[in-house]
Amino acid sequence: MAEEVKVFRTWSSPFALRVIWALKLKGVEFDTIYEDLSNKSPLLLQYNPIHKKVPVLVHNGKVICESLVILEYIDETWKQNPLLPEDPHQQANARFWAKFGDDKVLQSIAWGVVPMEGKELEEGVLATLESLKYLEEEIRGKKFFGGETIGLADIALGWLAYYLDIFEEILGLKLIDQEKFPSLAAWKQEFANAPIIHENWPDRDKLVNKFVAMREAKLGKETPK
Amino acid sequence: MAEEVKVFRTWSSPFALRVIWALKLKGVEFDTIYEDLSNKSPLLLQYNPIHKKVPVLVHNGKVICESLVILEYIDETWKQNPLLPEDPHQQANARFWAKFGDDKVLQSIAWGVVPMEGKELEEGVLATLESLKYLEEEIRGKKFFGGETIGLADIALGWLAYYLDIFEEILGLKLIDQEKFPSLAAWKQEFANAPIIHENWPDRDKLVNKFVAMREAKLGKETPK
Repeated sequence: MAEEVKVFRTWSSPFALRVIWALKLKGVEFDTIYEDLSNKSPLLLQYNPIHKKVPVLVHNGKVICESLVILEYIDETWKQNPLLPEDPHQQANARFWAKFGDDKVLQSIAWGVVPMEGKELEEGVLATLESLKYLEEEIRGKKFFGGETIGLADIALGWLAYYLDIFEEILGLKLIDQEKFPSLAAWKQEFANAPIIHENWPDRDKLVNKFVAMREAKLGKETPK
Repeated sequence: MAEEVKVFRTWSSPFALRVIWALKLKGVEFDTIYEDLSNKSPLLLQYNPIHKKVPVLVHNGKVICESLVILEYIDETWKQNPLLPEDPHQQANARFWAKFGDDKVLQSIAWGVVPMEGKELEEGVLATLESLKYLEEEIRGKKFFGGETIGLADIALGWLAYYLDIFEEILGLKLIDQEKFPSLAAWKQEFANAPIIHENWPDRDKLVNKFVAMREAKLGKETPK
């Protein structure tokens, strides 16, 4: 096999996990390069000079950055187990929810709500619940956002199925509860337990420690004693 | 012709312009619904309940939101004059620069730099110039980001070719000058003058007034007397 496929990731990045999942769902073999973002490798800086972030996919010397762009590339390059449906309107829906997840949920929870407290936290939680309601409506009656199989939107939103519990634990509150979000809760379980997804979650305790440290650092900065 | 194509836009939105340009480049006929964002129509709220924004494309009853998602839909639905190249890596590049333009240039200039002053403005301008340097490198030696013809990245970045001059006028400074950004300046001219693009720019004076008012409102709010 002359094909070279390399993924630059960190152990914890939910964006990088998307690329890992997509390649594994496609059955594409690849090499993994683990990056330490506090000491980025010269190769990472060379391949992604603009954002200096993971994930980066290198395929036969061609470099692709930005996780959602990489997912499209993977789907276009390896046609088996498609991530996007054939129908243009269903494709648009998948892209819409992937983008919604990034713009309105991931950023607002992980880098917004998690390092908040008091009134700011309350408001952030309310905004997050509003966004989650839209996801609940969209997934109602379906197994996956992609229908019967895991698709682009599932992969993009997949972090919810594991990281959200961790955020809830750190903040001491429940965001997706069974009663208010029955369909989203069912999807979380379905997705998290799918074999290829399940096998690739990062270490839970390490993630808790990482986000606790991030929260403390940020709160400390914003409310100096 | 039984096909129904409707675009919800405002007179000034650069996001909506993308959809207008793409449909016109494809030669697709459509009806335009002008929205007043201070008094949104029930139809806009029904079609885009989440973001409540323009543009919205309605094609034979199917609703598509988010300008970059709409561009992909248009390209997938009407195959003539492709916006994306065949090659997956070139596709990825086009998507990367479209996203870069939104994340790092459009948001940071229009809603960031334009309503700033003093030291904050200086820093914003420096960050913008950093981003523009990447665009300069990318467009060097090419007519369009898409190569010989206007593609997805050109349409996504197209606002630069008209709105940037207006922002420069309002701020009283030059961001893309001929000397530092010769290739980007050439692209601006090439793009702005392409017939379908040229015919669809909004009224310049009205845009100046709109952004002056936005700047004043925001500055007034942030530094109350």
